[in-house]
Amino acid sequence: MTRTTVESATRTVTIGFDEPFCVIGERINPTGRKKLAAELEAGDFSTVERDALMQVACGAMVLDVNAGVVYNSNPNPNETEPPLMGRMIELVQGLVDVPLCIDSSVPGALETGLELASGRPLLNSVTGEEERLDAILPLVKKYNVPVVAISNDDTGISEDPDVRFAVARKIVQRAADFGIPAHDIVVDPLVMPVGAMATAGRQVFALVRRLREELGVNTTCGASNISFGLPHRHGINAAFLPMAIGAGMTSAIMNPLRPVEMEAIRAANFLMDHDANGSAWIGFSRILDAVAEGADFAEASQAAQAAGSGRGGRRRRRG
Amino acid sequence: MTRTTVESATRTVTIGFDEPFCVIGERINPTGRKKLAAELEAGDFSTVERDALMQVACGAMVLDVNAGVVYNSNPNPNETEPPLMGRMIELVQGLVDVPLCIDSSVPGALETGLELASGRPLLNSVTGEEERLDAILPLVKKYNVPVVAISNDDTGISEDPDVRFAVARKIVQRAADFGIPAHDIVVDPLVMPVGAMATAGRQVFALVRRLREELGVNTTCGASNISFGLPHRHGINAAFLPMAIGAGMTSAIMNPLRPVEMEAIRAANFLMDHDANGSAWIGFSRILDAVAEGADFAEASQAAQAAGSGRGGRRRRRG
Repeated sequence: MTRTTVESATRTVTIGFDEPFCVIGERINPTGRKKLAAELEAGDFSTVERDALMQVACGAMVLDVNAGVVYNSNPNPNETEPPLMGRMIELVQGLVDVPLCIDSSVPGALETGLELASGRPLLNSVTGEEERLDAILPLVKKYNVPVVAISNDDTGISEDPDVRFAVARKIVQRAADFGIPAHDIVVDPLVMPVGAMATAGRQVFALVRRLREELGVNTTCGASNISFGLPHRHGINAAFLPMAIGAGMTSAIMNPLRPVEMEAIRAANFLMDHDANGSAWIGFSRILDAVAEGADFAEASQAAQAAGSGRGGRRRRRG
Repeated sequence: MTRTTVESATRTVTIGFDEPFCVIGERINPTGRKKLAAELEAGDFSTVERDALMQVACGAMVLDVNAGVVYNSNPNPNETEPPLMGRMIELVQGLVDVPLCIDSSVPGALETGLELASGRPLLNSVTGEEERLDAILPLVKKYNVPVVAISNDDTGISEDPDVRFAVARKIVQRAADFGIPAHDIVVDPLVMPVGAMATAGRQVFALVRRLREELGVNTTCGASNISFGLPHRHGINAAFLPMAIGAGMTSAIMNPLRPVEMEAIRAANFLMDHDANGSAWIGFSRILDAVAEGADFAEASQAAQAAGSGRGGRRRRRG
């Protein structure tokens, strides 16, 4: 049974076929968030702090940290991103005790993150590109961490799911050459927008099954891609996530502040028999009650966490 | 490819692996609806009329008609149910042009329904009970209609999914002895409440796959059973339906007046590549827009239908 272990200073999260779906919070990422990018360049980390606390309160089990901001004052991310990543990692793990997902296209930023992160972070990401394999797999081996493997290669992103499967297999095999086991590879089979490619959903469901049965790996995805460009996209996401979970998907990088998607995941966990006695569902339903009465989802989640009925919240450090 | 064909006077609905999920409206049923039962005994059919129109407006593709009321004036359903069934069938098919699902435990009521229903109705239901097999399969053969097969037998409802599969196989085999093809059997694998049986969801998903792969049959269920007794049960239903559809379920007997469940089904159809160009989703999203602005779902659905943008609505009779 495939189990990918990630850790913070004191907490362990297991991504696995017989575990609740692992929600990896995507918010701490300046890509496409101009206001956050400007704040980070100005040394203002208040949004990062809020995003860390809110995402964990809403049910994120792991937090992605991406420092991919291009400074106006220095356009070279190889110089600016590693120290920013370091600062963000230290800030976030000082606030919340959940494992981190260190997310960068800059190897130097990944290495800084690996040096500073407590426990056993998830590295995000390697691809099937030769240069990327050569740069990232030695880091994965050196720091003994799991890694997200995105199924594109030097030819780009294939629309053919068989090609994407083959890229995933190549990464798993290359990792094995380094002594990295398959259970430390979390494959992202790449989710296309269903509005642009009608088979996008079916492709993912079929790929997830193959990745699980043939390669024995856990899987993740950028879940909201599925609904890109569509009206009422949260409704698409909220059907996609349970279907992906039913097909065997074990994690997603997503926005945990969205109640509709989080409700779908909580319900899917229950239906997969990954919520003993439905206790997580029943706790979550109290937050839904508060939302139905007009409360903000994140605030209601924080209140429930403070009252001790939330899941995935911050625990006081041991010792 | 398994295709179950049901027909009204002029319209054909296909239940099948490569078709949009078939929503069978459950509302026209006095069981557990005391007010409706009293109305029917008093000869008041206004609720039946409204339920017929509303369910079709909201997206029901087939309407279940159940006349299972026990009259205060005559407690013998073998006497009262056949004429009531006949009257309800004639009323409903005079109002809406969708195929009907004739639902009774009284064989005489089923036969009356079969005589009066236009087109090719779905019969609901046969079980694995010997007496029921002997009573119902000859009707199925005589009228050349498809039938819902519920996977319980003389020993009751088994909690063991292997036993429920074996019951379904027995019904399919017994039907074959009558010359009834597997594609005219729509198996209900029986959905247990997940609040009472933690494996209820997984059981159904696995059973649906087996029924499809090993017996080649379409499937249906009483979808809302899954969430019986739980808080925020529509959230459970709205995850269960996409997961069941992803596993291969092809229809459900359910309440189409619930927007959350219908949204989940529309999204799942899109994700299964059963909604060309997402046109059904986009049409439905306009109804969701109206609901977001405060409209009632059924009324917004009727307005969309009247404006010609709804799906599954009444068409003017041909000729």
